[in-house]
Amino acid sequence: MEISNLRKLFLILLFLSSFQLCKAFGGVVNSLAKLRFDGKTGEFRILQVADMHYGDGKTTPCEDVLPQQMSSCSDLNTTDYIFRMIHAEKPHLIVFTGDNIFGFDATDPVKSMEAAFAPAISSNIPWAAVLGNHDQESTLSREGVMKHIVGMKSTLSQLNPPDVPDIDGFGNYNLEVHGIEGSELTNKSVLNLYFLDSGDYSTVPSIPGYGWIKPSQQFWFQRTSRKLKKTYMHTSNAMKAPAPGLAYFHIPLPEYASFDSSNFTGVRQEGISSASINSGFFTTMVEAGDVKAAFAGHDHINDFCGKLMDINLCYAGGFGYHAYGKAGWSRRARMVVASLEKTGKGGWGDVKSIKTWKRLDDEHLTTIDTQVLWSKRSAGKVLRM
Amino acid sequence: MEISNLRKLFLILLFLSSFQLCKAFGGVVNSLAKLRFDGKTGEFRILQVADMHYGDGKTTPCEDVLPQQMSSCSDLNTTDYIFRMIHAEKPHLIVFTGDNIFGFDATDPVKSMEAAFAPAISSNIPWAAVLGNHDQESTLSREGVMKHIVGMKSTLSQLNPPDVPDIDGFGNYNLEVHGIEGSELTNKSVLNLYFLDSGDYSTVPSIPGYGWIKPSQQFWFQRTSRKLKKTYMHTSNAMKAPAPGLAYFHIPLPEYASFDSSNFTGVRQEGISSASINSGFFTTMVEAGDVKAAFAGHDHINDFCGKLMDINLCYAGGFGYHAYGKAGWSRRARMVVASLEKTGKGGWGDVKSIKTWKRLDDEHLTTIDTQVLWSKRSAGKVLRM
Repeated sequence: MEISNLRKLFLILLFLSSFQLCKAFGGVVNSLAKLRFDGKTGEFRILQVADMHYGDGKTTPCEDVLPQQMSSCSDLNTTDYIFRMIHAEKPHLIVFTGDNIFGFDATDPVKSMEAAFAPAISSNIPWAAVLGNHDQESTLSREGVMKHIVGMKSTLSQLNPPDVPDIDGFGNYNLEVHGIEGSELTNKSVLNLYFLDSGDYSTVPSIPGYGWIKPSQQFWFQRTSRKLKKTYMHTSNAMKAPAPGLAYFHIPLPEYASFDSSNFTGVRQEGISSASINSGFFTTMVEAGDVKAAFAGHDHINDFCGKLMDINLCYAGGFGYHAYGKAGWSRRARMVVASLEKTGKGGWGDVKSIKTWKRLDDEHLTTIDTQVLWSKRSAGKVLRM
Repeated sequence: MEISNLRKLFLILLFLSSFQLCKAFGGVVNSLAKLRFDGKTGEFRILQVADMHYGDGKTTPCEDVLPQQMSSCSDLNTTDYIFRMIHAEKPHLIVFTGDNIFGFDATDPVKSMEAAFAPAISSNIPWAAVLGNHDQESTLSREGVMKHIVGMKSTLSQLNPPDVPDIDGFGNYNLEVHGIEGSELTNKSVLNLYFLDSGDYSTVPSIPGYGWIKPSQQFWFQRTSRKLKKTYMHTSNAMKAPAPGLAYFHIPLPEYASFDSSNFTGVRQEGISSASINSGFFTTMVEAGDVKAAFAGHDHINDFCGKLMDINLCYAGGFGYHAYGKAGWSRRARMVVASLEKTGKGGWGDVKSIKTWKRLDDEHLTTIDTQVLWSKRSAGKVLRM
């Protein structure tokens, strides 16, 4: 979509002034309180931004937009779109699922990252990022990129878990979302978020193509999931079933290829660019039993969610304008909203349901493909431990 | 094959007398020296015994033998066959790849194990075992069975690695085979053996069927492989390529289904009873790069080796008589022989080649399907680190 130059100027000024404000209160912004469900609505709202492909800002042109959009289109359209999404959806957390910058076209990767994540920072919204396969293509290594991200304002991103020192990749961590302040679950994580580095490219000569989630990462995930379940189900206010979890990473799993239009919601307009081999992370999630949905990016013009063995495998669809897409097919973002159960006493309990939808970057930020990913009721008695 | 009652009696007496001898020198037998290549032949010879399915001994009947064999056939035929294999092949190590006992028909699992492993023990040959899916079906749990095995004479089996305390399964360990005594590689492991517990059955309701190798086990394998490579390639007498490795476990990987008669040696007479999902261990082995062949059991009437991405996936074929098979199709065992390179100075170097063949339990212990699994020369310059 086209945005006026005046508007862009306004946004940039807004960004700069917010940035100064953030700098002044840097310590405060960086020491964010733990994530928690909203005490008024009983919701936790997550915006997924996939494949921003940020370059140098206003001088970096758009790809695959309509001819009449091209002349005024740049990375700033991506920035504008994030601001509009924040305004419309008021997320409690923004998750950037990799290819946040497009390294080849980022003259200075630090500046590109500062600009790419600026809307989250200037809005003072907690955010988390994982790496894609393009983030390290400028002058910083994958480790360098992730280390820089971890030091940015408002982010909850982490480099790697301390308890698995030889873990593969950079940016493997989890975040806990606690129950309503003052409720019985105020000190418990009722929604668990897992972030994993799905790598960039295979380094094994006999395996062509993209990277994958390695055993060390799956071991960390398995161990973390077990610990979280133990705390949730066997300490004070012991719960009967594990807290639901969501997993975010860049490259789709081979199992994303299990679907067709008869059993997914959304579209598949290109192949599934997973690793060429199966490293077993889907199996590991099924066995862990707490993850109800996984969210990837990478394939910009696929945006579906399909359910396999009770786990939803979702794409967000491409968000960024300096990324391949499909002219006339709007850039999009995925929202996930988890809602708590109301208790008899007028308080809040554990997670009742998890819904998702997408918002298109058109005039009205049209909502499409709303669906329930998981609900406590339909999960019934089939508990997986 | 049929063996006379007199011969059986002789074997039992031999076993009992050996057992007493072992008890007397238990401490000595148990503190076996480290595994090492043979200084005379430059070989290390491994006998794989798959699916003994040992029950109660002479009262436990055979399955799927010819009508004329049935009346005189029992577990003792299995015992006799091991003795004959030991005599013929003089292995330096015997690997029992699970379903060593058939729990349902083992009145006392300890007695069944004592009898099943007796030929190795009484011959004072080091042996290693992993669990199948039937070993725990008597009165001992999987942990109990493996703990008992670890305490037996002559065995190098281990319960689990100390550095991954929360590893899944029982019987995950590795063994190092050192170079010739007095050679430059006397203190280096030139052949690495990995043993993994592939589980019994899925405990995940949405995944039917057999068990699989979990992330914690793959993490241990990955870490161990890295350590071994580092020691081999970056300490005194630094080698240019990793030492070759061999992996032993019970349940075949899903990738065993990649072959047909056009690209394997041996036969496939039944389906591949792998887990119904892919847990990624094949990928993990390919990435590690040192394992040249994996050896499974479980499917008694498949006995092939097929090569995928430079890794041989081999069955041994069923060994035990109290196990399903195919009447008229001989029970069989797989030999693996690694040979060292002769150095210019008349000494011995690192591993030059790894060969395999099978021996049928017929009158002449006929050798079939001899093939080279790996040779240093053909591996050429494609090193995988």
